[in-house]
Amino acid sequence: MSTTPAPLAGELEAQLAATADRRLARYLDFLRIPSISGIPGHAADCRRAAEWLAGDLVDARLEHVEVSETGGHPVVYGEWLRAAGAPTVLLYGHYDVQPVDPLDEWEAAPFEPVIRGGRVLARGASDDKSNIAIAVAAVRALLETRGALPVNLKLLFEGEEESSSVHLDAWLAANAARLAADAALVADGGFFEGNLPAITVGLRGICAAEIHVRGPFQDVHSGSHGGAIDNPINALAGIIAALKGPDGRIRIDGFYDDVVPLSEAERAALAALPFDEEAYRAGLQVPALVGEAGWTTLERRGARPTLDVNGIWGGFSGEGSKTIIPGSAHAKVTCRLVADQDPARVFELLRAHVLRIAPPGVRVEVVSLGGGRPTTTPIDHPATRAFAAALEATFGRPPLFAREGGSVPVAASLASIVGLPVTVMGFMPPNGNFHAPNEWMDLANFEGGIRALVRFFDGLAAGSA
Amino acid sequence: MSTTPAPLAGELEAQLAATADRRLARYLDFLRIPSISGIPGHAADCRRAAEWLAGDLVDARLEHVEVSETGGHPVVYGEWLRAAGAPTVLLYGHYDVQPVDPLDEWEAAPFEPVIRGGRVLARGASDDKSNIAIAVAAVRALLETRGALPVNLKLLFEGEEESSSVHLDAWLAANAARLAADAALVADGGFFEGNLPAITVGLRGICAAEIHVRGPFQDVHSGSHGGAIDNPINALAGIIAALKGPDGRIRIDGFYDDVVPLSEAERAALAALPFDEEAYRAGLQVPALVGEAGWTTLERRGARPTLDVNGIWGGFSGEGSKTIIPGSAHAKVTCRLVADQDPARVFELLRAHVLRIAPPGVRVEVVSLGGGRPTTTPIDHPATRAFAAALEATFGRPPLFAREGGSVPVAASLASIVGLPVTVMGFMPPNGNFHAPNEWMDLANFEGGIRALVRFFDGLAAGSA
Repeated sequence: MSTTPAPLAGELEAQLAATADRRLARYLDFLRIPSISGIPGHAADCRRAAEWLAGDLVDARLEHVEVSETGGHPVVYGEWLRAAGAPTVLLYGHYDVQPVDPLDEWEAAPFEPVIRGGRVLARGASDDKSNIAIAVAAVRALLETRGALPVNLKLLFEGEEESSSVHLDAWLAANAARLAADAALVADGGFFEGNLPAITVGLRGICAAEIHVRGPFQDVHSGSHGGAIDNPINALAGIIAALKGPDGRIRIDGFYDDVVPLSEAERAALAALPFDEEAYRAGLQVPALVGEAGWTTLERRGARPTLDVNGIWGGFSGEGSKTIIPGSAHAKVTCRLVADQDPARVFELLRAHVLRIAPPGVRVEVVSLGGGRPTTTPIDHPATRAFAAALEATFGRPPLFAREGGSVPVAASLASIVGLPVTVMGFMPPNGNFHAPNEWMDLANFEGGIRALVRFFDGLAAGSA
Repeated sequence: MSTTPAPLAGELEAQLAATADRRLARYLDFLRIPSISGIPGHAADCRRAAEWLAGDLVDARLEHVEVSETGGHPVVYGEWLRAAGAPTVLLYGHYDVQPVDPLDEWEAAPFEPVIRGGRVLARGASDDKSNIAIAVAAVRALLETRGALPVNLKLLFEGEEESSSVHLDAWLAANAARLAADAALVADGGFFEGNLPAITVGLRGICAAEIHVRGPFQDVHSGSHGGAIDNPINALAGIIAALKGPDGRIRIDGFYDDVVPLSEAERAALAALPFDEEAYRAGLQVPALVGEAGWTTLERRGARPTLDVNGIWGGFSGEGSKTIIPGSAHAKVTCRLVADQDPARVFELLRAHVLRIAPPGVRVEVVSLGGGRPTTTPIDHPATRAFAAALEATFGRPPLFAREGGSVPVAASLASIVGLPVTVMGFMPPNGNFHAPNEWMDLANFEGGIRALVRFFDGLAAGSA
């Protein structure tokens, strides 16, 4: 689905029409900054993105705008608090993006955005710069036309979401007082299969780790030494293979201990979602959908924990052959977590399990790369209801309430540290290649998003009046 | 052990002393050519090494010197056939070398040889440019002093030994007539642990393959899709883990069918070799020596087949984290083979086994990277006996007869295609880091090698007179 969003009333729609080029140009400028938080060499780019974004907030007439240090990539904060008596909304997004390799699979350079067929192609075009650009555009339109917002608003944009939000919790704890609000919108979500408007009611958590296996002091001749010593790659493969059974069940001792069982109602709600398994399989171009026995594909994707190796390397990977036993082998592993799994506990279980099964001829080390808790969204909260109404008014149909397999650590942190009910929303197209080559954003979703957010602010204010 | 080799008689030793600088300079020039046969980008370097070597043979007064096309890297051939009535020896070596990565572990640039403490440090310093330089120096010394060799000699230097000698067998078959000889020396061997003179009586064969595992059409978000599809890295790890049991035994159906059992005499001979297990383990810096149950370390290294992964890659391997399911994962695998395993049959067994155990959610392909047959050496052949005597006269002790875990495909090919008895010999130090960073050659072995070869030629001629 990609329908034309319903226009706003009079002056607001006129402002949006008159500023469309400027708005698109700002969004593309934002996309040109390679703010990859997971790669240390891009730290300066992350800071540049933060400073660019702070400038954009000032330009949009937000107040008390600040680039705030975290010990890592900075947080960008801005607010508008002049709606006396109206509710206060905290809106979160992240300005950092995923790495771009494999670069040769991109149709265009990832940080030189191009527009094709109503889509913007660039790293971050969806995740999550689209949701930030939409929020700032909605605020700008309201302040330029009415000179005021219908609600009080606090904008919080993070720079480490794609690298496990390592420094965010401490920053939230230190700034909890000024983040006080009636509701939090985590604007890092998107639409459902078929590009149907959706609100995410469950987010998986994450636990990220690296496994390092070390054997001989350096690469050695596989003829001279083969048979006499453990091979670090063979050993690593054995370790990885032992983490998950052929039934898709994770074999780490204690891994499932804290998983809250899905209720029959929740299973029924997931089963009721429109979902074409064969279209999904064909879209990914895999020979078969496979996963943990006893669960449907949507349950596996959204409501069950997982273990995936995100990268592996060791030895010789050039053309031709090199007959060595490598000195070491390495893998990056992430688990997606569901309520009530705790990332720190899962890491310790993973670490203990790997060390227990490590073969005797190698040295094995397991290092944490951070984590985030799983979370769920209150469907009956006024902010969730107002957002659902705004989506329906804008896109012509009520939203689906879906579980999302991805992880937004901040959702759990806002709930636990700042004490806020959290609504996860956003406008990314479901097949927008987030974290992959050729990420893209649907421009109809982008324009609709601005109008839906304006309606949300108005609706929330009206509902509380 | 690194003793001063026994000098030759009068004029020959004087020639060798007078030409030491020139000899070393030529050897270092040879080492400066990065003739890495396994990397296509080095094809021109391989040809340059062949042409340099042909020039060296002409300079040493070899006759009918030729750079002969093979379809891959060329063969260098030269001969001296004026010893009427004397035996004819075919001497083989290879001018190609292994790749050099990981480059950052080298103490000096691999193709800028340096001399430190009696060692030459460079890629190929041992394997196998040392043995070639030794052979040419011995021939040059004889022809410069006596104007003749005591035997007829055919020199055959290959450029694809480190990449499975893909084109050599066809070249040998096409040139079998002019390669006729009484014995073949395969000069691609070395000394035993402790730098003790040795003759290799068994060489393992090799079977090289790549495994490619493909999943979704590109890297995809591990949150959105994790749990619903097979992960190519997890799948590849499972395949590799299933190729070998925790007992070190290879689980490929039929893999051991053609393995000739070691006789009690062979096991006793291996057990009698001087070998310090703890020093070997400490030298490699591994926590334990491990391998196939039921066999000693020397048996595992020399007389049993192996399976090692030489390289693995897939997904994200940069710093930090990237939460993807990769589109593909890849591994390079080699098996070392023993008599009478056939590399083509082993590849088919490996391929069939991998395809049989491949999980349903990925596409798996197994590609051959070539192979070579295992071989054994006749201990009682006149050439072997003459070489043993030459080693004893030069280095002061009789050689050990050892099994070598490495593979020299040409040994089996010379035996089967040209019909020659093959003696595998050479002067590389046993811990010379072949195929690894910081490869080196012992200059005492180098100088001793020249004198041993002169004695071998004289001894073989005298023995047949």
